[in-house]
Amino acid sequence: MKNNLVIEVVRIGQRLVRDDRVTTHVALVSRAFGAKRIFMTEVNPEIKDSLEKINKTWGGNFVVEFIDKWKSIVKKKKEENFRIVHLTMYGESINAIQEKLRKEENLLVVVGAEKVPREIYELADYNVGVGNQPHSEISALAILLDRIQKGEQFEKIFADAKRKIIPTKKGKNVQVKETRD
Amino acid sequence: MKNNLVIEVVRIGQRLVRDDRVTTHVALVSRAFGAKRIFMTEVNPEIKDSLEKINKTWGGNFVVEFIDKWKSIVKKKKEENFRIVHLTMYGESINAIQEKLRKEENLLVVVGAEKVPREIYELADYNVGVGNQPHSEISALAILLDRIQKGEQFEKIFADAKRKIIPTKKGKNVQVKETRD
Repeated sequence: MKNNLVIEVVRIGQRLVRDDRVTTHVALVSRAFGAKRIFMTEVNPEIKDSLEKINKTWGGNFVVEFIDKWKSIVKKKKEENFRIVHLTMYGESINAIQEKLRKEENLLVVVGAEKVPREIYELADYNVGVGNQPHSEISALAILLDRIQKGEQFEKIFADAKRKIIPTKKGKNVQVKETRD
Repeated sequence: MKNNLVIEVVRIGQRLVRDDRVTTHVALVSRAFGAKRIFMTEVNPEIKDSLEKINKTWGGNFVVEFIDKWKSIVKKKKEENFRIVHLTMYGESINAIQEKLRKEENLLVVVGAEKVPREIYELADYNVGVGNQPHSEISALAILLDRIQKGEQFEKIFADAKRKIIPTKKGKNVQVKETRD
């Protein structure tokens, strides 16, 4: 995996309450699959707390950042030389485009809910379809991040974890770090 | 992709209403990623209708089957020479075990919700962790199926589709088949 790869995510188009759990899963996938940060508009503030609790227990310093307008973030990131990758079932096939994506260094991944503003198709540098069948923004994000990083995100250490899983054939094996707080 | 590969999924441990949307996404991923069937207990019957509507529009004959007890299905499938793959963040790492999984021909994937009965760890032939960080059963299932099939599930034709997406760089390009019904 390239050491200088920076991945950030922005969630757009979700509906309050109805989409909260899906948005939480999108944030969890972002964190577990090596993104540094997720930007969100109009969400339940509890999502930020949940992710912070997870950092505390399982390590790392993944950031949830609330924003007012997704478009300002997309524009700002473009200026900072990020490439914008919009996940949509209508886009170019991940199988066809993954090699090109792997060459990029700074990526902002746009994860839409059911309806997204038309503009995002134009603003995006890449519109990417993870298959061309309906499924889930959660699975689409996971596959994109896995393909770009070739699975190496799962070898990454999450710093300062209180709990660490030791992979095992049957049952659960968790290393618990003693702390004094 | 091996032509004789058969993948089925069973969803266990979900709570009615609270987990309905996540379960729907699990079913959608199963269908879009090449599984033939999903077994479910105690779910909103609307999930079956949604998936049937999706088959009608986007093709294929993915099956949603309601069952009484997950354990009977797991045992029955074991007798039918299926290998049982249980997704759990505590299991063996997908990066380490994927080669072995690719050699199997009949797989029943067990997708748990937050709490699963202890027994499943023993009944499973493989307990597989898609990373060892918390994320989502939706993304875990997607990665498992993508790795086993090496992405070839996205090249598969869904028969008798009314609508078919033509992957495109910007916007939406959908082929609509004329029908007489």
